[in-house]
Amino acid sequence: MTDLSHGAAWMAGHIGPVSDAAIPVTDWGVTHSDIAYDVVPVWQGAFFRLDDYVARFMASVRALRMDIDRDAEDVKTALADMVAASGLRDAYVAMVAARGRNPVPGSRDPRDCANHFYAWCVPYVHIVKPDAAARGTSVWIAKHIRRIPSDSIDPTVKNYHWGDFTGGLFEAKDNGFETVLLLDHEGHVTEGPGFNAFAVFGDRIVTPDHGVLHGITRRTVLEMAAETGLQVEARPLPLAEFLEADEVFLSSSGGGVIPVARVDDRTFSNGAAGPVANDLRARYFDWIARPEHRTPIAY
Amino acid sequence: MTDLSHGAAWMAGHIGPVSDAAIPVTDWGVTHSDIAYDVVPVWQGAFFRLDDYVARFMASVRALRMDIDRDAEDVKTALADMVAASGLRDAYVAMVAARGRNPVPGSRDPRDCANHFYAWCVPYVHIVKPDAAARGTSVWIAKHIRRIPSDSIDPTVKNYHWGDFTGGLFEAKDNGFETVLLLDHEGHVTEGPGFNAFAVFGDRIVTPDHGVLHGITRRTVLEMAAETGLQVEARPLPLAEFLEADEVFLSSSGGGVIPVARVDDRTFSNGAAGPVANDLRARYFDWIARPEHRTPIAY
Repeated sequence: MTDLSHGAAWMAGHIGPVSDAAIPVTDWGVTHSDIAYDVVPVWQGAFFRLDDYVARFMASVRALRMDIDRDAEDVKTALADMVAASGLRDAYVAMVAARGRNPVPGSRDPRDCANHFYAWCVPYVHIVKPDAAARGTSVWIAKHIRRIPSDSIDPTVKNYHWGDFTGGLFEAKDNGFETVLLLDHEGHVTEGPGFNAFAVFGDRIVTPDHGVLHGITRRTVLEMAAETGLQVEARPLPLAEFLEADEVFLSSSGGGVIPVARVDDRTFSNGAAGPVANDLRARYFDWIARPEHRTPIAY
Repeated sequence: MTDLSHGAAWMAGHIGPVSDAAIPVTDWGVTHSDIAYDVVPVWQGAFFRLDDYVARFMASVRALRMDIDRDAEDVKTALADMVAASGLRDAYVAMVAARGRNPVPGSRDPRDCANHFYAWCVPYVHIVKPDAAARGTSVWIAKHIRRIPSDSIDPTVKNYHWGDFTGGLFEAKDNGFETVLLLDHEGHVTEGPGFNAFAVFGDRIVTPDHGVLHGITRRTVLEMAAETGLQVEARPLPLAEFLEADEVFLSSSGGGVIPVARVDDRTFSNGAAGPVANDLRARYFDWIARPEHRTPIAY
């Protein structure tokens, strides 16, 4: 038996170690970052909100006008087979559609490419380490880099155009911060590498609506907040308003709800995780254990 | 002997068929499009302006704060060995630096990644087929998509963030055009997939200076134009002014100077290649044969 405990990949129907999985250097997925992807968490042996993640993935594939020759059920089967083979009980599971290579000599026409699907999984990823998240993490507002606008690359179609995030991460690390949040060209808060952002004002929570991925964890937060009697607002969020919040926090499929203790030189909640974020963080781990959100894996 | 006539790749010092060359699906070069690259043409058995292309590549690598553990001379040696092995006399030669995989479990820090260099070559690519270029090609101005701004992704650092170009290409093909040109958010002409753009007004030629790659072919055009007594201006170029030009043309390492006969519903030069573009097109193929620009390959 091959050891897949470090991760597995599903490539053209074959399941093997993730470390062996590769795509051609001439695939437009590489040379043009021409890829739609999604990531669904596996927690305690079950997918969380699998239908929602796969539905978003299929919508992204359609938006990029790719034909991966399989439907949502086929994708779910591939993911379940792969995770079962890996034996991973807590996993980060990526599904990917790539434009593929162009088999027509000299063609620069994307319609000629051979689109393809693949998937891979690794042990569960926390975008902020759990101990740092529990204490409240630190967020740098990028000063030199703005989020790619929606009319250049649509952020609701989950994609690998991460150069703005990575440039921002270098800024953050240079300044001693854990992660980075990008503004749009009008100075509104958008999102960071792998997460949405929220501000808490009393019993209201506010999150940006435009220029961001509509995260499934973001949706979960909005649903949990409504359940607890918090008011929710999805609307443009200027940086100045964000910095005046009682608390701020992040949401990600890689760690759930992540409290923030510091943004630039502004300290929140006396430099600790705030009570609303802490409560939502705990609720998230309850929610992902709820039977109605779980698709158990047959290991 | 392996047949490399369809293309070769240099991967970790090994030269093999380009069709076998692949990078890991978890490489940040894929998952974050975290790649700097460049492309140098080989024409009639020699690199054209090799020093210029490799210098730009090394500058891109530094701009993205990657360490590929080799200098410009090492890169040139790898490219020359690879093209010689392929036997290709006319080739499109790509040099690539990728962020690599992150070997630190759970790390989201780009500084932890293992950066790496690779290269590949295929038979010479014309971004517009030579017969279409000779007649004058057709260019669609993207209506729904704007070029990614420079403060999101720096276009002078040659990169694979091509989603705006690819979206634009779909628009162009849907409307029966060969290729696409993108505007910036202020309505100025920028660039298209693999080319810079020029407008001719009498004895002046104008090309955008900001928000575009500073193409080596663009530089060659500016030098050739100066040599022939044309005036050259690199400055912001509003779409309305572009459409009022006597002629327009494109420049690319994949085909040199490419005359344009039509932009949207505007016909140039009576629907044919214009005289200035035609002259520069012929001069380009003279220039790439000049000994001072050639680095012959020892096949």
